[in-house]
Amino acid sequence: MKQLKKNQVGIFALGGLGEIGKNTYAVQYQDEIILIDAGIMFPEDDLLGIDYVIPDYTYLIQNKEKIKGLFVTHGHEDHIGGIPYLLREVNIPIYGGPLALGLLKGKLEEHGLLRRAKLHVVKEDDVIRFKKTSVSFFRTTHSIPDSLGIVVHTKEGNIVHTGDFKFDFTPVGEPANLAKMAQIGENGVLCLLSDSTNSEVPGFTMSERKVGKSINNIFKQVDGRIIFATFASNIYRLQQAVEAAVNDGRKIAVFGRSMEAAITIGQELGYIRAPKGTFVEPSQLNRIPNHEAAILCTGSQGEPMAALSRIAHGTHRQIQIIPGDTVVFSSSPIPGNTLSVNKIINQLFRAGANVIHGSLNNIHTSGHGGQEEQKLMLRLMKPKYFMPIHGEYRMLKMHTMLGKDCGIPLENSFIMENGEVLAVSQKGAEIIGKVPSGSVYVDGNGIGDIGNIVLRDRRILSEEGLVVVVVSIDMKKFKVAAGPDIISRGFVYMRESSELIHNAQTMLAKHLDGVMKRKTTQWAEIKNEIIDQLAPYLYEKTRRKPMILPIIMEI
Amino acid sequence: MKQLKKNQVGIFALGGLGEIGKNTYAVQYQDEIILIDAGIMFPEDDLLGIDYVIPDYTYLIQNKEKIKGLFVTHGHEDHIGGIPYLLREVNIPIYGGPLALGLLKGKLEEHGLLRRAKLHVVKEDDVIRFKKTSVSFFRTTHSIPDSLGIVVHTKEGNIVHTGDFKFDFTPVGEPANLAKMAQIGENGVLCLLSDSTNSEVPGFTMSERKVGKSINNIFKQVDGRIIFATFASNIYRLQQAVEAAVNDGRKIAVFGRSMEAAITIGQELGYIRAPKGTFVEPSQLNRIPNHEAAILCTGSQGEPMAALSRIAHGTHRQIQIIPGDTVVFSSSPIPGNTLSVNKIINQLFRAGANVIHGSLNNIHTSGHGGQEEQKLMLRLMKPKYFMPIHGEYRMLKMHTMLGKDCGIPLENSFIMENGEVLAVSQKGAEIIGKVPSGSVYVDGNGIGDIGNIVLRDRRILSEEGLVVVVVSIDMKKFKVAAGPDIISRGFVYMRESSELIHNAQTMLAKHLDGVMKRKTTQWAEIKNEIIDQLAPYLYEKTRRKPMILPIIMEI
Repeated sequence: MKQLKKNQVGIFALGGLGEIGKNTYAVQYQDEIILIDAGIMFPEDDLLGIDYVIPDYTYLIQNKEKIKGLFVTHGHEDHIGGIPYLLREVNIPIYGGPLALGLLKGKLEEHGLLRRAKLHVVKEDDVIRFKKTSVSFFRTTHSIPDSLGIVVHTKEGNIVHTGDFKFDFTPVGEPANLAKMAQIGENGVLCLLSDSTNSEVPGFTMSERKVGKSINNIFKQVDGRIIFATFASNIYRLQQAVEAAVNDGRKIAVFGRSMEAAITIGQELGYIRAPKGTFVEPSQLNRIPNHEAAILCTGSQGEPMAALSRIAHGTHRQIQIIPGDTVVFSSSPIPGNTLSVNKIINQLFRAGANVIHGSLNNIHTSGHGGQEEQKLMLRLMKPKYFMPIHGEYRMLKMHTMLGKDCGIPLENSFIMENGEVLAVSQKGAEIIGKVPSGSVYVDGNGIGDIGNIVLRDRRILSEEGLVVVVVSIDMKKFKVAAGPDIISRGFVYMRESSELIHNAQTMLAKHLDGVMKRKTTQWAEIKNEIIDQLAPYLYEKTRRKPMILPIIMEI
Repeated sequence: MKQLKKNQVGIFALGGLGEIGKNTYAVQYQDEIILIDAGIMFPEDDLLGIDYVIPDYTYLIQNKEKIKGLFVTHGHEDHIGGIPYLLREVNIPIYGGPLALGLLKGKLEEHGLLRRAKLHVVKEDDVIRFKKTSVSFFRTTHSIPDSLGIVVHTKEGNIVHTGDFKFDFTPVGEPANLAKMAQIGENGVLCLLSDSTNSEVPGFTMSERKVGKSINNIFKQVDGRIIFATFASNIYRLQQAVEAAVNDGRKIAVFGRSMEAAITIGQELGYIRAPKGTFVEPSQLNRIPNHEAAILCTGSQGEPMAALSRIAHGTHRQIQIIPGDTVVFSSSPIPGNTLSVNKIINQLFRAGANVIHGSLNNIHTSGHGGQEEQKLMLRLMKPKYFMPIHGEYRMLKMHTMLGKDCGIPLENSFIMENGEVLAVSQKGAEIIGKVPSGSVYVDGNGIGDIGNIVLRDRRILSEEGLVVVVVSIDMKKFKVAAGPDIISRGFVYMRESSELIHNAQTMLAKHLDGVMKRKTTQWAEIKNEIIDQLAPYLYEKTRRKPMILPIIMEI
């Protein structure tokens, strides 16, 4: 990319633009870089076997002495999940609210990084000052406590990053700090980076308080046990379920590791409050009458290893569905999970439970603001330049249309790609180039060692299976010494296809005799002969195109 | 199962109960079997590489002399797609409406079965008489013309199968025959089998006529080209798009094989009507001004090989997106397709098109009736016994609750599983057992040759990859003659992991020397030694568990 000019503020994302997931934003002014969030993304279906996706941190590693700190807007995985991977490369100071850092600590401990991490808890009114930049915060509402918007102050102007937000005027926690946001807007915003997640959704997102009322009604109406599933990190929702249980005279057992962690940390920070004796050990459940029992559990997205899935399938060690149970999905399935959630709902019904789910029951609301809330943010901040963030291309695009309606001309709005650098100043704004960016795949211990070739192989293997051809060749006599043997996996059931395999072997043996008469010493040539003979033969017989792996042993 | 008694009517499904997809229902009275529909299901994600799923036809093959005919309710894939596979086994006569049989003909031709198929086009008022049973029909409304409900008449009572239906009072084609349905109900229905697809959706499904108005408005407002994507089989929708195009002075080009076929057959049967010259060849598109051009195409479900996907990605031979184009998705993505549809929408926006999609624009409506329509059917038919069909377990369950509200006691409602036989008579109803049932996978040429072992292998290969270990053993000297060599696919990128592979080879070579000293002649033992050594080694280094395939060559 071109160099930033002295009066230009560079803004870019390493991930989270034009895709699902939000990630690693950077604001660079002269020789100072302020990072905002560092999340992971969850792999789409075609990334076979990949656990997580993180962005390419090359630019940050190359410029690590410039990085002043990483500022975390809130504690969701797609905002903090990448931090352990980033910290291995650059051990920068991290600033964030109490809950975000609390959740981060657990994560860093798992990775063995907690002791050397430099964590700084911030309050909304703190100002973190560096030589040429300073950072301040404003409180927002979202589906997790301690959510902050971030302002990066420079001499050239202020850059505002909203984080994830909605405007819940009757929230469970503290309301958004409208006054501070208005003041930030009055002081002048050079560029606004604003959450686009729900830019296609008209209106205003339903208040968390309304969800609480529905939960209360359900707890009152249900006579049997209640199994309540939601995102563990949605501490407000947990608190509302806890309140409903307490109001209805129920004890609560907690299932699932992340749910246990959330309840613990939520209580430590005072976000989850319950009379003593409300929480019981899972082992005590059997001693409590059904109408006095409530269960909080993970698995609302249909995750196959989570508590709810195991409960539904009868494989949970401590609890089984009994007729009269009511399962509440206080969640909405993200698109890729619809089918697995459906399966679990069916399984629960089959097991005799009643299931309450879906948007009709007002038992869930989004953490992101709809179009009117996005407009409110735009009107409060009145930015000169606008960069929609957090969303697929269509959402970013729609957000610029909302911006236009709120007085930001389309030429001042920038739909960016990951890595693209927007240089803004009082004089103008332009995209000046690209820093290294791209997806890095995490699979088991490996970070970035799985590339497109491995994925392509996995894809072929998964759809067509594999045929291995082994042949031992006596390279002195130019003769086949043993084989060819054919072994397959994921192709056909070998016991029932012995004729096909046998005929293929005979055909190949004959052909290889001919090849060896040419006194070939090139293994690659022999391998190609095997593939060229076998592939059309198998396709003709089966209409399948398995991966063919010829292996030649020289003796 | 127990034998049916002489006065009992047996009812069962070979597929389509408690799952997505609708399939092959049978009504058996004494020695006569009436079949209703024979569809395919599309494989879920975990059926790697499988093309289609059909039910197990064993019972039908064993009782083929009893089968009087297959009656087709309408021409959707999930109702007729299995017929070519069924006909290979039992060449029974097939009865259905003109469009259903028209679409079926194309399918049978592809499979080389058209000449020997016994096809009989029926009209609503036909009655097909057999010795002990007869079959009559009633017109319903659905998202495809010529949709019929089916009545199987027996001396013991009448069995009604609704097919797929909604009650569209302002349809594009003919309205449902309420009078006939009411008369059937008055005459007495022993058992009703009714479509449960939308039993969780309150209210009434929006009329197709309203969709037509939205389409008309869009065509009028748009200045550039319009690319209109929908299900090819939704002939009513196609007709409405054609009318809108004609009203707006546009010519229409058709893209996609199934769309071309639908337009042709729709015109032949008079369901699609357009002034001469309305349809133009794709090659003529360039000569038509943008505001006079409309394109009908396949791919509204994000199918990667369909016309729309290729248009979006710029790989279509005949058409490319130009700024000003408007793409209309007159469809709603089925759950498993949401992500692929999303990707195409993003791609179209990126390419400069405007995209109209989603439920907000009233450009799509379901083909299935909501709760009020299902209740209307129940009130019209007033069945003694009720068997909800077509839907996942939760939908069948909900449908029985609606039945209860309409006066059918829960003990008279039967949530069945595939294969289970409900025996009904004037004296009562009971499930008397199960006929063979289950899923048969179609992959390429193979029908049923892919089983769970092959699928399990594909799953492991897709997520963890493969490691092949080849070793030549001199069985006379009890020595390793060549190898062990390690080749991997889908596991790690071999060029960058040469150290890992090399170390594993060295470790294995050493270990096999020890094994050979035991003078082992059991190949299975040697293979297990290889797996037992290598699996923990690779897991420790990579946290991955690839499939390990040991191959031993004896020389």
